[in-house]
Amino acid sequence: MTSSDIIDNYSRQINAINDQIRKSPPMGKVASYIPGLDRVPPDLFGMTLMTLDETVISAGDSKTPFSLQSISKVFSLTLALKAVDEELWDRVGVEPSGNAFNSLIQLELEKGKPRNPFINAGALVICDVLISAYDQPKQKLLEFVRFLVCSDELSYNQSIAESEKKSSYRNAALINLMKDFNNIKNPTDRVLDLYCYLCSLEMNCESLAHTFLFLANQGIHPSSNEQVITPSQTKRINAIMQLCGFYDEAGEFAYRVGLPGKSGVGGGIIAIKPCQYAIAVLSPRLNKRGNSYQGIHALELFTSSTASSIF
Amino acid sequence: MTSSDIIDNYSRQINAINDQIRKSPPMGKVASYIPGLDRVPPDLFGMTLMTLDETVISAGDSKTPFSLQSISKVFSLTLALKAVDEELWDRVGVEPSGNAFNSLIQLELEKGKPRNPFINAGALVICDVLISAYDQPKQKLLEFVRFLVCSDELSYNQSIAESEKKSSYRNAALINLMKDFNNIKNPTDRVLDLYCYLCSLEMNCESLAHTFLFLANQGIHPSSNEQVITPSQTKRINAIMQLCGFYDEAGEFAYRVGLPGKSGVGGGIIAIKPCQYAIAVLSPRLNKRGNSYQGIHALELFTSSTASSIF
Amino acid sequence: MTSSDIIDNYSRQINAINDQIRKSPPMGKVASYIPGLDRVPPDLFGMTLMTLDETVISAGDSKTPFSLQSISKVFSLTLALKAVDEELWDRVGVEPSGNAFNSLIQLELEKGKPRNPFINAGALVICDVLISAYDQPKQKLLEFVRFLVCSDELSYNQSIAESEKKSSYRNAALINLMKDFNNIKNPTDRVLDLYCYLCSLEMNCESLAHTFLFLANQGIHPSSNEQVITPSQTKRINAIMQLCGFYDEAGEFAYRVGLPGKSGVGGGIIAIKPCQYAIAVLSPRLNKRGNSYQGIHALELFTSSTASSIF
Amino acid sequence: MTSSDIIDNYSRQINAINDQIRKSPPMGKVASYIPGLDRVPPDLFGMTLMTLDETVISAGDSKTPFSLQSISKVFSLTLALKAVDEELWDRVGVEPSGNAFNSLIQLELEKGKPRNPFINAGALVICDVLISAYDQPKQKLLEFVRFLVCSDELSYNQSIAESEKKSSYRNAALINLMKDFNNIKNPTDRVLDLYCYLCSLEMNCESLAHTFLFLANQGIHPSSNEQVITPSQTKRINAIMQLCGFYDEAGEFAYRVGLPGKSGVGGGIIAIKPCQYAIAVLSPRLNKRGNSYQGIHALELFTSSTASSIF
Repeated sequence: MTSSDIIDNYSRQINAINDQIRKSPPMGKVASYIPGLDRVPPDLFGMTLMTLDETVISAGDSKTPFSLQSISKVFSLTLALKAVDEELWDRVGVEPSGNAFNSLIQLELEKGKPRNPFINAGALVICDVLISAYDQPKQKLLEFVRFLVCSDELSYNQSIAESEKKSSYRNAALINLMKDFNNIKNPTDRVLDLYCYLCSLEMNCESLAHTFLFLANQGIHPSSNEQVITPSQTKRINAIMQLCGFYDEAGEFAYRVGLPGKSGVGGGIIAIKPCQYAIAVLSPRLNKRGNSYQGIHALELFTSSTASSIF
Repeated sequence: MTSSDIIDNYSRQINAINDQIRKSPPMGKVASYIPGLDRVPPDLFGMTLMTLDETVISAGDSKTPFSLQSISKVFSLTLALKAVDEELWDRVGVEPSGNAFNSLIQLELEKGKPRNPFINAGALVICDVLISAYDQPKQKLLEFVRFLVCSDELSYNQSIAESEKKSSYRNAALINLMKDFNNIKNPTDRVLDLYCYLCSLEMNCESLAHTFLFLANQGIHPSSNEQVITPSQTKRINAIMQLCGFYDEAGEFAYRVGLPGKSGVGGGIIAIKPCQYAIAVLSPRLNKRGNSYQGIHALELFTSSTASSIF
Repeated sequence: MTSSDIIDNYSRQINAINDQIRKSPPMGKVASYIPGLDRVPPDLFGMTLMTLDETVISAGDSKTPFSLQSISKVFSLTLALKAVDEELWDRVGVEPSGNAFNSLIQLELEKGKPRNPFINAGALVICDVLISAYDQPKQKLLEFVRFLVCSDELSYNQSIAESEKKSSYRNAALINLMKDFNNIKNPTDRVLDLYCYLCSLEMNCESLAHTFLFLANQGIHPSSNEQVITPSQTKRINAIMQLCGFYDEAGEFAYRVGLPGKSGVGGGIIAIKPCQYAIAVLSPRLNKRGNSYQGIHALELFTSSTASSIF
Repeated sequence: MTSSDIIDNYSRQINAINDQIRKSPPMGKVASYIPGLDRVPPDLFGMTLMTLDETVISAGDSKTPFSLQSISKVFSLTLALKAVDEELWDRVGVEPSGNAFNSLIQLELEKGKPRNPFINAGALVICDVLISAYDQPKQKLLEFVRFLVCSDELSYNQSIAESEKKSSYRNAALINLMKDFNNIKNPTDRVLDLYCYLCSLEMNCESLAHTFLFLANQGIHPSSNEQVITPSQTKRINAIMQLCGFYDEAGEFAYRVGLPGKSGVGGGIIAIKPCQYAIAVLSPRLNKRGNSYQGIHALELFTSSTASSIF
């Protein structure tokens, strides 16, 4: 196939998937435990694929912004790797946890070192690293994501962030347990604040695909040709997304979709096909493991019909 | 034996034990993890027995004040039972934990309800109950203990309390985990503050035996004849002390000493013989399970020679 | 009170309790997981108290034999202490477990050393010790219990034992895990066989109170004046019964009844009051923690009305 | 690059890696816990890559047979999928465990359903499935692997299998725990026997690469063009290898090597690059996580120099 044939095929598939999903009965439920998230229209569906040359293929509600939630943890991880590189792994692991995303049990047994950067404890350590590394970590992070997406409009949702902070007892417990093991250096409030703002980032599918494209491109930002992180760091992040990006549904996602990716309870999923594309999908209803029900389904249809699975 | 024979025998035994312990080589180490506690002279040894008619039999450093630490948890438990009675057991259990005193694992698995009032999580819930029940819980608690000991001199050690608060990350983790399960109602700082002040209470062996005498007397304060708690509540506290008063050394203490009791990392131990006496001992060096090495030994010698074990 | 007044009072109380329980609505369910046990008439109620001078006070179905199940673990523990004394504690602990009676979790974390002799793992180690110590451990154990009860009629219920062996997968798992940690020396089948026969012992309340009387008598068999175990070993067993005899209801039993005791899923409970009496009760319906619902209630009524609680 | 250029490059890289590894100081230790494995010469090093057209590129000790151990679990998994297809996932999961490969803890908490087919519990369930599905499962499995490798010479190492069976207490514990949850249907001995024979399979690197080639070829056996399993089942196995093939080093292997693979304590590793090749390596010294120290290193060098990582 020529490049334009490939694009045509992608476009055809994405439109067909949009049609199919919209005809399906609604499955799953919108997340309710974070105030604000529950006001999202449950039956939104959007999808955007962006190729390395920044060709954009979209369908459905691809321009409707949504709360990234845990998807943002890839941005903070990237920034932390830029700041301290491999030293990061002294404080957080790279292995699947086999436990609930917010459990303290494994964290206590393993003496305060979180299994990976995507479970809550790990993402909190990453926030702590950023606070130590940058004077204004919240501003720094925002600028970094704005650079990736080539737009100054992107921002935090202060109301979501503040409401999440108010019910962050479990995260405060994780932080304090890690402080006891000397694996969090900054004050609890500052770590919690950065974490909640990070999760409150909002963008639409088109922007989301754009921001993740560097991970499909060996670490090079396609718009500016700037090397964001090294190819080795890129492999590291992609490997972690593959193994830990979907909590206790990682194995199922690897089989059904076959791409490194990351989900958020806002109903978004991002996945990347190395050397080819990034693909974002939005569908707010979640399955019982907290991942977008139709989002996984849509990606499965896409990688099956285009033989894109890496397995 | 007549009552005076019994007193004579107690006195002889306690003096003999004092002699024997002082001749023994030093065993164990003073607690170091709480700043301030490590400045205690390690080879202090004191012992006081007080009978229901308030006869006092002492030996050694029985007038040297020391930090009660976890022993104080019996006072807060008593006050909480006075305030809410059996409702307390909706929020904290009465069973041995089988886990480390500050572990979060069982607490997470059991959805935020601590196993008993003496592990840290349980004692923190008790503090939360007192804060909800009393306008000035710290003052109220102090007055209660002063009443028990019939002295206004007793007080908190502010310096120990404040230094403990500064390193209370593990306790803050426990509080936040319980807040997540809605089992702590008041702000983290207030709960932590009351807890650390509670543990910082200081008194000597003579006062300690005096304060616990009501638990040997079916809940009646011997000095004032006031019913502090009901006989049923008294049985409850004694049963909990028997089963949970020595963390993972409860079974060993039950065998060797055979009385309900409570230890603290300050090196103190209190035990009571229902309907007969309370006995306090101080020896700051701790065994590897965190209980006073010679304190247990001294009590074992005493209950063996006087056939006082309840078993 | 004179001795005969005491006996009269005991008798009055036990008859009153028998009346009261029989008028109560049925509570709880007969154990169903062991084939054979579920054929017991659910509303049996019997109670026997025996004093040190072997005065017998009975009420209700005190002559109806029932399956001792876990109560028998006190016999095997006693015999093992006779065989190897304190060395036993190298292989099994003396502390409450805080876990389900048949859990493998704590056993794996603690490297194959069971917390106490009454959880399944611990009772299996005790059986292993007896197999190593005696040529014919099953016969030896039977003779020992017959000696205690002064009767040759007592025996194992082969049908219960064999049916229990057939569904002993969990116990086989425990044995194999301990073999992996080198804490079981004999073949799985032999250990399982002795364990199931041990649990199948049958007797009535009168015999049961008789067999346990030596534990209320500093280890001396009242009928023969023979020293069965030392006073120190007796204290050890009583302390373990107090702390571990009722699984995760030990604290509640200590409060409500206030005596060292042991329950079995056959609906029996035995308790002893040191220096005074042994008391056995039968009521097959169990509460949700697997202990006799009315059995605990009856003992609570008895120790309350006679002020017998040790606390 | 033309196909022949690619082959030339592969060949150059593999020879260079062989040279480099042989010059490196020895790292890690040969497995000692399975009798027989410890007699392997520790400094063997062999490597074989086989492309879909069955071109073979080898270096070093690529013709020296070794014990496959856990690598064989991929054969049993494949055969079980052929027998019962997706029903298999009712009895074993597809997610990383986050626990030690032989732990009973998670298995008890998750009620006897193993996390994935490669931890011991999961592989034992697979054996049970094969015993139920085939009259002569041991013979059937051997024939299947002989078919894959196109040779009748391959066989079990009876001496290794029998010696492993003798020390299989942990595996017997796992089986019995699963029997208790009704997730093992056949007798313990039969399951253990098949498991130990499975692990005792021996072959060299060239055969190993050959047997796994169908997983790089969408389930089609390249030699016979027979469809061994469906493309979907192939994706499933590859996804499981990626996420669970290296126990608690899966994330590290994904980053460093970037291919689905499986290791064994015999020092072998197999990995596949979908649509391109299978690659086998032998180096008996293991790192502390039980995977071949130089085997991982060699594969990392290879995928880096040939840009073969899927991430």
